[in-house]
Amino acid sequence: MESLRVTIVTIVLFTAGSAAAAEGDAVALKQAQEIFRPLPKDMGTAEFPVTKARADLGRMLFFDPRFTIDANVSCATCHQPALRGSDGLPTSIGVKQRFHPRNAPTILNAALNIIHWRGSGQPDAKAVVDRLAQIPGYLPLFKAAFPDEAAPMTARNTANAISAYERTLVTPSPFDAYLAGDVDALSPMARAGLETFINTGCAGCHQGVGIGGGMYQKFGVVEDYWKVTGSRTVDTGRMDVTKDPADLYVFRVPSLRNVAMTPPYFHDGSVATLPEAVRIMARVQLEVTLNDAEIRNIVAFLESLTGELPSAFATVPALPPGAVVSGQ
Amino acid sequence: MESLRVTIVTIVLFTAGSAAAAEGDAVALKQAQEIFRPLPKDMGTAEFPVTKARADLGRMLFFDPRFTIDANVSCATCHQPALRGSDGLPTSIGVKQRFHPRNAPTILNAALNIIHWRGSGQPDAKAVVDRLAQIPGYLPLFKAAFPDEAAPMTARNTANAISAYERTLVTPSPFDAYLAGDVDALSPMARAGLETFINTGCAGCHQGVGIGGGMYQKFGVVEDYWKVTGSRTVDTGRMDVTKDPADLYVFRVPSLRNVAMTPPYFHDGSVATLPEAVRIMARVQLEVTLNDAEIRNIVAFLESLTGELPSAFATVPALPPGAVVSGQ
Repeated sequence: MESLRVTIVTIVLFTAGSAAAAEGDAVALKQAQEIFRPLPKDMGTAEFPVTKARADLGRMLFFDPRFTIDANVSCATCHQPALRGSDGLPTSIGVKQRFHPRNAPTILNAALNIIHWRGSGQPDAKAVVDRLAQIPGYLPLFKAAFPDEAAPMTARNTANAISAYERTLVTPSPFDAYLAGDVDALSPMARAGLETFINTGCAGCHQGVGIGGGMYQKFGVVEDYWKVTGSRTVDTGRMDVTKDPADLYVFRVPSLRNVAMTPPYFHDGSVATLPEAVRIMARVQLEVTLNDAEIRNIVAFLESLTGELPSAFATVPALPPGAVVSGQ
Repeated sequence: MESLRVTIVTIVLFTAGSAAAAEGDAVALKQAQEIFRPLPKDMGTAEFPVTKARADLGRMLFFDPRFTIDANVSCATCHQPALRGSDGLPTSIGVKQRFHPRNAPTILNAALNIIHWRGSGQPDAKAVVDRLAQIPGYLPLFKAAFPDEAAPMTARNTANAISAYERTLVTPSPFDAYLAGDVDALSPMARAGLETFINTGCAGCHQGVGIGGGMYQKFGVVEDYWKVTGSRTVDTGRMDVTKDPADLYVFRVPSLRNVAMTPPYFHDGSVATLPEAVRIMARVQLEVTLNDAEIRNIVAFLESLTGELPSAFATVPALPPGAVVSGQ
C-alpha cells in the first residue's frame, strides 16, 4: 500500500514535471519563432524570378570555368559542393592565384544575405560573353532562359541565370523542422544551446531566416577582434568601402546555416574550430565568458542548422563541349 | 501484271541487297571486335582491387583540395565532372598557378592507360598525411578501407584509394553496345566512319579497350607535328624522360573514349575542334588527306565513344569538415 502510494505520487509529480517541460518547450519554440524564420522553397523574387530554364542554365554557368580570365576558375572553385559550398580555406584563391583577402562563405542559402563581407561590388563580367559565344551549346540555352530577348547572351543575363540557380540552393535543416513545430527535431542539448544562444545575446544579430546574413555589425565590440582570433592582418572592414569611420571593423553578420560544415571561421578564416569561434564571439561581442557546457550546447544547436545538400548542387551538370580561347 | 513483276523484282533485289548489307555489317563488326574491346565493369586488378570502402574513400580524396600545398587544388580541379573529367584548357594550371606543360586527359576510363603523356612519374605525396590527419573524419574511413593495417593513413593508401575510385570510372558507350553485337547502336554514318578509321590506319594505334591509351608513338611521323598544329612550343616528348633520341616527339597514344566531349586536342591542346584534329592526325601520322565526308563520318564514329557519366563522378561526395593548416 505504501509502495502504491509512492508510485502514485511519483506518477503525479512526473506528469506535472512533464507538463511543465512541455509548456517550457512551447514557450521556447514560440520565442524562437519570433526571432528566426524557416527557409522558403526557393529564394526567387519579382526582380529575380526562378524559372527552370534560367536555373538550369545558371547551374551550368556556375560550374563552367571557361569564361573567366584563365578559363580555370568557376563559381564552384571557391564554392565547392564537396565542401558544402565553401572552399575550406582561410581566405580564397582566385584567378591568377590571387589571394582573396577574405573567407569564402558558403553559397548555400546565400541569396538570403547582403552581398559580400563588406557590402562591396560584384566582379566585372565584360569579357564573359566573348568566351561563352565560343561554346556553341550555350546560345540555345540562353534563348530558352530569356525567350523574350532577341540577343539574350549578355553578361547581365549570365549573372541573372547564375542568380536564379543560386536562389534554388536552399538547405532545410532540423532547425527548420523545429520552427515548423516539431520540437523533437532538435535534441535536448541543441534546445538548451538554442536557449543559451538567445539569452546570451547571439540572436541579436544572428536572427531571421538566415540566422544571420541580414545586417552589418562591428566585429569586436568590447575588445579588438584580432587580439583574440590571432588574425595575421587587421581588416578594417566596411570602412574601406563607405569611407565612414563608423564602419571601422564592420562586416556582414554571417548566416550560421551549415556553419558546422564550413570551417574555418570569421571573415579571415582565422579560427579553425566551431567551439573556439563560439567562445570568441561571446567574448569580443558580448563580454560573456561561456563555460564548456554552454559552448557544447550552442555547438549542438548550430549543428542543427546543417541542411541537406540540394541535388542540383551535389550533382554536377554535364557542360556543352568547347575549347575557349582566353586571355591565357 | 507488269507492275506486279516490277514490284517482285524490286523486292527480290532489295532483299538480296539487304542480305549483302547485313553480311557486310557482320564482317565489319567481326573486324571491329578483333581490333577493339568493350569496357569491363570496373578496372580493378589483383594488385589494385576495387572495394567499396576504398572507392568511397578514394572518391572523397579525389574531390578534396585540402591536402595539396595551398589546400586549393584537388584531382577534380583538372579532372572536372562538369567537363567530363578534363578541364577544357589547352594545358592545365596546377598548384601555385603553375602552368602544366600538357593537356589534362579525361580521368574517365584512365586506369586503362599508360600513366601520363610521356610515361613520367606521379606527383610527390609526402605532405599529404600530415594534412589529412587534421580532418578527423578521415581516419575511420582509412581504417574501413584498409582493415588489415594498424596505421592505414599513409600516402601510399591515399594513392591506393584514389586509384580504386578511378578504376570505377568507366563510361560504356554506344560503341560498346556495337561491339557486344548490336549493329544498330551505331548510326550508318558512324559505321562508315569506323570503316574509314580502320582502313585509313588510325586503328593501328587507337585500338584495344581504350581505343588508344596502350602504347607510345611518335607524333608527326611524316612531318613535324607543330608545323601543322600551330603549337606555341615544341614539346620533345618522352625523350625528356628516357633520354633516348628514339623517343623524340614520342607521346602516349591517347584513348579516344569521350574524345568528342573533351576539346581542345593533342598533348598541348593546340587544336580546338575534333574535325580539325582528325584531319591533322591523318596528315601527319599517315600521310592521308581525308575529304570532308570522311572526316564527318570519323567524327560520327568518335561521337559514339561518348559514354554515360558515372554517378559516382557526376555526384560530388560531402567531405568531412575540417580546416587544414597548409603551406599557404
